[in-house]
Amino acid sequence: MRFTKMHGAGNDYVYVNGFEESLPEDLPGLARRIADRRFGVGGDGLILILPSDVGDVRMRMFNSNGGEAEMCGNGIRCVAKYTYDHGVCRNPELKVETLAGVLTAYLTVSDGLVEQVRVNMGPPRLAPAQLPTTLAGEPLADIPLTVDGREVRVTCVSMGNPHCVVFVDQATDDWVLGLGPKLETHEVFPQATNVEFVEVLSPTEVRQRTWERGSGETWACGTGASAVCVAGVLTGRTERKILNHLLGGDLLLEWDGQTDRVWMTGPAVEVFSGEWPC
Amino acid sequence: MRFTKMHGAGNDYVYVNGFEESLPEDLPGLARRIADRRFGVGGDGLILILPSDVGDVRMRMFNSNGGEAEMCGNGIRCVAKYTYDHGVCRNPELKVETLAGVLTAYLTVSDGLVEQVRVNMGPPRLAPAQLPTTLAGEPLADIPLTVDGREVRVTCVSMGNPHCVVFVDQATDDWVLGLGPKLETHEVFPQATNVEFVEVLSPTEVRQRTWERGSGETWACGTGASAVCVAGVLTGRTERKILNHLLGGDLLLEWDGQTDRVWMTGPAVEVFSGEWPC
Repeated sequence: MRFTKMHGAGNDYVYVNGFEESLPEDLPGLARRIADRRFGVGGDGLILILPSDVGDVRMRMFNSNGGEAEMCGNGIRCVAKYTYDHGVCRNPELKVETLAGVLTAYLTVSDGLVEQVRVNMGPPRLAPAQLPTTLAGEPLADIPLTVDGREVRVTCVSMGNPHCVVFVDQATDDWVLGLGPKLETHEVFPQATNVEFVEVLSPTEVRQRTWERGSGETWACGTGASAVCVAGVLTGRTERKILNHLLGGDLLLEWDGQTDRVWMTGPAVEVFSGEWPC
Repeated sequence: MRFTKMHGAGNDYVYVNGFEESLPEDLPGLARRIADRRFGVGGDGLILILPSDVGDVRMRMFNSNGGEAEMCGNGIRCVAKYTYDHGVCRNPELKVETLAGVLTAYLTVSDGLVEQVRVNMGPPRLAPAQLPTTLAGEPLADIPLTVDGREVRVTCVSMGNPHCVVFVDQATDDWVLGLGPKLETHEVFPQATNVEFVEVLSPTEVRQRTWERGSGETWACGTGASAVCVAGVLTGRTERKILNHLLGGDLLLEWDGQTDRVWMTGPAVEVFSGEWPC
């Protein structure tokens, strides 16, 4: 079975073109084996590019534990690049069927290859019940919270999943690795939360480190970068359009005041291709 | 450039056949890029299979940080399997030129493919100055040592690199992750040491977890498994020939009383092959 390894801002998956390759029945099992970084190809999971009745292509994604996931902002960019670059479909406004609905990916093409992809990350949800959190306020902007004996100010935004944004002078290990896990499981977040530590470099530029719920520090988190864009506007620190430097690469975010949607633009990179003996 | 990903008991490298592929000049740079688990193929490093004037093939290995290494017991087994299976050379007693000299790999072939490879890991060195350690005794067998307020008994063996073996009832995280780093950098080991925690299942079978100097817990360590074989004999716990279960797979070890050499037999597995755009 042919596969292609791709990443979007360091969020890496093994991609298989289901238009050409025949797939085994046990997809969760394949995902677990192929995503293993030592005994397999290695990646955050497996993404299949498949025919669709309602879009140009259908995207199915499985995490490295075999569980099927709804959607991934970094993954859909790679699906779009693969689909265009390999001639599966040349629509520069690509309709991608996902478990979260049919989403449109807008492609920036250079010399016949996709360089950047823009996707709609949906509207932020700002009510405490939508996070969920027991903190009070709407929006939850710079709310004081005591954690590990220290008072920090948190801004809480749901992008379908919960995010707790902390603006700091420097996003040090002390913050991310020390306070990240304590905020993740703080009693005010009954379903736990993702945590973003953010340095504001200017009203249009930030640097972010991410503590992902259940995963620890990660290279890139599309919903987290979107939540940071919203949090910057809610607290008056940044404008509606920002460049966000993450460990794995840069993302451009825009919270559109008219439609209330957050748009994310970012890179998609093909790393190598290979043959998996399945 | 074509490559093949292989592993020996979970110790995984990217292998390139230098008889067929043309290599870039900057090999340390290639190793760093290709061994990156997120932005490259991913592995513990890069191993090149090259023509040799003094052996059947020459093995050059680079760690993921770009540094060239002398030899690797798990790596040389994969070199042997690749060389035989892909028809580079069909000698079942393969002479491999390394920076540690010309070593012989003895192949077990089944249905035309190599399954197991036996290599000579050299003689153990038992004098304190050869570890080095400031502990007294030769051999250093079950020597009491206080670490973190606890008294443990350590058996110290050099296989070219230092090993501190601790026999335990159960090789728990408490031992490996808790005491491993403290023993690694204990003041009695001026150049630090690798640490093995070993459960004796029977006089011919052990289970090992490894805390590698500078790397933390690892899946397999060929010199460590060899040191454990020697330590079992020195302390009267095991016979000269043992099966050693490591996290990444099983290794068979034998400390030959006649020649003083330690022989290691283990698997070599081809995971997948691919094309690297270099």
